[in-house]
Amino acid sequence: MTYCVGVKVNAGLVFCSDSRTNAGVDQISTYSKMFTFGIEGERALVVLTAGNLATTQAVVSRLKRDIHDNKRPNLNTVSVMEDAAEYLGRVSLAQQRKHVNAVAGSAVDTSATLIFGGQIGDAPQMLYLVYPEGNYIGVTDTTLFFQIGETKYGKPILDRIIRPDTSLDEAALCTLVSMDSTMRSNATVGPPVELLVYERNSLRLDRHATLEENDPYLQEVRAAWDKEIKVAFSKLTTYKWGQFDNRFESKDRN
Amino acid sequence: MTYCVGVKVNAGLVFCSDSRTNAGVDQISTYSKMFTFGIEGERALVVLTAGNLATTQAVVSRLKRDIHDNKRPNLNTVSVMEDAAEYLGRVSLAQQRKHVNAVAGSAVDTSATLIFGGQIGDAPQMLYLVYPEGNYIGVTDTTLFFQIGETKYGKPILDRIIRPDTSLDEAALCTLVSMDSTMRSNATVGPPVELLVYERNSLRLDRHATLEENDPYLQEVRAAWDKEIKVAFSKLTTYKWGQFDNRFESKDRN
Repeated sequence: MTYCVGVKVNAGLVFCSDSRTNAGVDQISTYSKMFTFGIEGERALVVLTAGNLATTQAVVSRLKRDIHDNKRPNLNTVSVMEDAAEYLGRVSLAQQRKHVNAVAGSAVDTSATLIFGGQIGDAPQMLYLVYPEGNYIGVTDTTLFFQIGETKYGKPILDRIIRPDTSLDEAALCTLVSMDSTMRSNATVGPPVELLVYERNSLRLDRHATLEENDPYLQEVRAAWDKEIKVAFSKLTTYKWGQFDNRFESKDRN
Repeated sequence: MTYCVGVKVNAGLVFCSDSRTNAGVDQISTYSKMFTFGIEGERALVVLTAGNLATTQAVVSRLKRDIHDNKRPNLNTVSVMEDAAEYLGRVSLAQQRKHVNAVAGSAVDTSATLIFGGQIGDAPQMLYLVYPEGNYIGVTDTTLFFQIGETKYGKPILDRIIRPDTSLDEAALCTLVSMDSTMRSNATVGPPVELLVYERNSLRLDRHATLEENDPYLQEVRAAWDKEIKVAFSKLTTYKWGQFDNRFESKDRN
């Protein structure tokens, strides 16, 4: 399994990914799921991957080769973010289809889902979710983040915190808390955690951190969040039984 | 979809369930998923249901008819909780099997999963999860709750709060917070929310509440939790970029 999240706020973009892959519970490996592209000062692009590892590796390899071979389009030549998202979708679909006959009827799923974000020149920063089918959706004013992989455990905190005016530091923290909740509940999502913060209009990708399981900051956040959640819970009022008659009833006991 | 949770703490048992059923997004109905059985002062039993509505209604109907027809065993005659769980599993499996030929090859899933808890006489209180296959597992010292239906959104708070010495009031509150997180994220889990608290050794089921969507207590908990979560988040320390050199790196840009 995998958990990746991309967030767009006014101040920039935040990307966070785990590094665990598994093919069954007894075959667990560590692979980065975060890939950066671009040319400093001109374009800054980030891809997060979920799904079949062979497919996602092939996709990333193709993206790099297209740049190296100067094949058009590639991520260093596309002039707008939407064209880049469409190109990514085509590359992903082509890699998935290569093995479609071999896996037909088997339990193997070669599909891949991507989060793609960044900025090219003076056009606006953007964030996309690229589906296995190669089509894609972009963030809007009301939907500010995309998750791929094991998305449920870590969604509530993103729903509550992420707003357009959330600062980059807070958005980054929020993705780490979301990642922590997911890692606690799903053993196939695991460290190291990668965090990348892109400052809008900087066209540079220089804030990237790889946090190992025993990373002191990650441990501090984890411990503090556990403590503060308990404090928050202690502030709530418990139910008063019998306070209202219609809430205090004896059910039919047959 | 459905969300039900059962919790066992030293002081007693807590049951919480939503009331939404759906067969597609345009066919949504309200059905209680909480059923109580027993004889006051002698036995107190609670069943929560998830899965195919036709199956779960047939299961509950069979449980009542076996009592009415005085067919042995039934929930009023079994002498130990484990026998009751086994009987429940048999009834559930029999109802699922009635339609197994009709649904073979179709997308219809007639399976049902149950949470079953309570106490009989002076034997210990107990809580079980009854699988669609009719077998069951019980809570232990390390696993104090069971969830059925849409379990993921509401699990983190239960993991953090529920301990053997958690009070009944706090355990009940925790299930409501867990239910609230689930209802926010999954539109097929919805009110009214039913809450039932069983005090250990009371052999009475007299604390049952049905909380509608506009219930003032439910609204108060929801608003307070949202506020306190944000307070908790604001207490966390954001990441300090460049604090350690090995965390501040520029990735290969191809």
